[in-house]
Amino acid sequence: MNREERYTTGLKVLSEVDGEAGQRVVDSLADVSPELGHQVVAWAFGDMYARPELPPRDRQLVTLGVLAALGGCEIELDVHVNAALNVGLTATEVAEALLHTAVYAGVPRSINATLVAKKVFAERGLPPVNNLG
Amino acid sequence: MNREERYTTGLKVLSEVDGEAGQRVVDSLADVSPELGHQVVAWAFGDMYARPELPPRDRQLVTLGVLAALGGCEIELDVHVNAALNVGLTATEVAEALLHTAVYAGVPRSINATLVAKKVFAERGLPPVNNLG
Amino acid sequence: MNREERYTTGLKVLSEVDGEAGQRVVDSLADVSPELGHQVVAWAFGDMYARPELPPRDRQLVTLGVLAALGGCEIELDVHVNAALNVGLTATEVAEALLHTAVYAGVPRSINATLVAKKVFAERGLPPVNNLG
Amino acid sequence: MNREERYTTGLKVLSEVDGEAGQRVVDSLADVSPELGHQVVAWAFGDMYARPELPPRDRQLVTLGVLAALGGCEIELDVHVNAALNVGLTATEVAEALLHTAVYAGVPRSINATLVAKKVFAERGLPPVNNLG
Amino acid sequence: MNREERYTTGLKVLSEVDGEAGQRVVDSLADVSPELGHQVVAWAFGDMYARPELPPRDRQLVTLGVLAALGGCEIELDVHVNAALNVGLTATEVAEALLHTAVYAGVPRSINATLVAKKVFAERGLPPVNNLG
Amino acid sequence: MNREERYTTGLKVLSEVDGEAGQRVVDSLADVSPELGHQVVAWAFGDMYARPELPPRDRQLVTLGVLAALGGCEIELDVHVNAALNVGLTATEVAEALLHTAVYAGVPRSINATLVAKKVFAERGLPPVNNLG
Repeated sequence: MNREERYTTGLKVLSEVDGEAGQRVVDSLADVSPELGHQVVAWAFGDMYARPELPPRDRQLVTLGVLAALGGCEIELDVHVNAALNVGLTATEVAEALLHTAVYAGVPRSINATLVAKKVFAERGLPPVNNLG
Repeated sequence: MNREERYTTGLKVLSEVDGEAGQRVVDSLADVSPELGHQVVAWAFGDMYARPELPPRDRQLVTLGVLAALGGCEIELDVHVNAALNVGLTATEVAEALLHTAVYAGVPRSINATLVAKKVFAERGLPPVNNLG
Repeated sequence: MNREERYTTGLKVLSEVDGEAGQRVVDSLADVSPELGHQVVAWAFGDMYARPELPPRDRQLVTLGVLAALGGCEIELDVHVNAALNVGLTATEVAEALLHTAVYAGVPRSINATLVAKKVFAERGLPPVNNLG
Repeated sequence: MNREERYTTGLKVLSEVDGEAGQRVVDSLADVSPELGHQVVAWAFGDMYARPELPPRDRQLVTLGVLAALGGCEIELDVHVNAALNVGLTATEVAEALLHTAVYAGVPRSINATLVAKKVFAERGLPPVNNLG
Repeated sequence: MNREERYTTGLKVLSEVDGEAGQRVVDSLADVSPELGHQVVAWAFGDMYARPELPPRDRQLVTLGVLAALGGCEIELDVHVNAALNVGLTATEVAEALLHTAVYAGVPRSINATLVAKKVFAERGLPPVNNLG
Repeated sequence: MNREERYTTGLKVLSEVDGEAGQRVVDSLADVSPELGHQVVAWAFGDMYARPELPPRDRQLVTLGVLAALGGCEIELDVHVNAALNVGLTATEVAEALLHTAVYAGVPRSINATLVAKKVFAERGLPPVNNLG
């Protein structure tokens, strides 16, 4: 695949996985670093995400772990909590994955990521998660 | 202690140390991950913070160091600057602890944490800190 | 469950998931902070890992993401690459999860985590992973 | 140089490099930790930045790399994207430096830093950057 | 104070707080970046650590929090666990401060820092810490 | 360019910039994640590094900033300190860039990166750097 074909492949994956939220981030880069937007589409989604070695649901679990651990990635967590729901994780599973990060990345990172999930769940009209027990 | 007793212990410590600010964070998790709220209370405060090996004032110095170093923890720093004042650190000591982090975590992390302290000090009506010299 | 029962539950999970590698880390804490070893067993494994909301394979994907992103966690990655293989991820899937982290945590974190996986795969006598393509 | 002379030197460098943006950060510390403001001026700019071993343009490239990698440094990136432009980097070069960080710090850190640059470029009335290709 | 006097002040503090361990780090920089060694002594210890707003014991609690949270700071933790013991923290208190970081920085960072403390305690011939309970 | 051509381009850049040190890292991935090695060559060097918007010397300044700030990247710093010298930075400039990171990433990160530079300078038989003053 050449540069244009990789972009086309990536755009298809981005659209299936991230929906509008991912496209909005790419669009936000159009007048400051369109090449970064291109790399997100062509490399991150076209070359990497599209690989068959792990299905999207598994990739989103890894991604949630990375983004929660990094901290300061509210914009990207917004996209990837949406993506996680798009590829088959339930809201309860997303909340549990982020709860799990408390063990390895600490409680503050876990709380911050969970508050992004809360916002996304509300925007999508999902019912409250009750994971007590 | 069982799960409920650990929660009760934790709630007492949380209330003494963090006051309303900590409770607000726990409340904010109620409809997205109440178990994370439970772990904050029962584990972080009931099991860990309540241990007698270090008094609350010492724990807050460690916590300020961790949160300043992590970055992106404005919500938690808000709670823990309040907590620091609640358990006996003065505003000057809080500012100094955060100034001290500049050496080890760099100036930007120190500035960001200090600006959270500024907000908390103002909300509590504290006079300006003059630590020049 | 009380403190002792949580420890017993955690020990069972730790043993199933991490095998000897996790126990070695807990043992290494015995003469410096046995309470930290206790918390790893009773809290991290007994309270958190044992929750049914996500199966072990999913938890390991999140954990690999967090540990790769944090950096400097070679000891813990050694344990959790072993754990990942123990709970059903293949070597190819582990390598792919760590390759995936390059997008979000950068190439150096991905390389460092992958080199830990290389060591673990070799210790377990696994054949080379060929994921080119 | 004594404390006062270092401050004077630093203020001159700060003013040349950061312009008003840096002064605003120092001012924001005046009533919470004026000593931190003093250290920014006297140490960071007077002692360190003023050293002749690297010219300002080179220092800003290093600084952009550090701040993008740390994450959660939007306030400081705002100052230092301005500084980068003040000392001779073009908007295209700033965007490229931040694009370059995607390789080493991951795509989210690169995006977040680039969005700060976008804001600064707009505030300065700069034309869109087209770095596709 | 001028540059030389700040260095002399810093050297006195460094020697009191860090003992030989700090000096070894400064010495290790002598043929690659003696100015960095100078800044450690004159700025970190002479200007910052020597300030009376917080006593050394308090500063070491903050420092342990920062270094544990950063990760990858084994060399510096070695110095600062020694420093913590030199300025009046007991081995049990050091272990507890590092246990406390598990809540905020996660279990891996806490374990890694605790294993450095284990090494330092052994080098100083201290008895095992028993903090169970 | 297709996948193979991007790899060929990247290999040429990698060889010019990193010399043997970069190739060794790629080789070390051959039996665990050859695709990660491919991405390093084809994407990091072929697509990104080769872009004309910044010359190699500028890219290395950014890279040194990122790697020092991340911490735990000794393997990659080894490669990129070598690369920095290969593309025209002097040992004094490398030491200064890493000294500069102390302001933004803190003294420990700066020391750790500088000690990697010390090792590389020694391996290349460079004379001591004297940057005092």
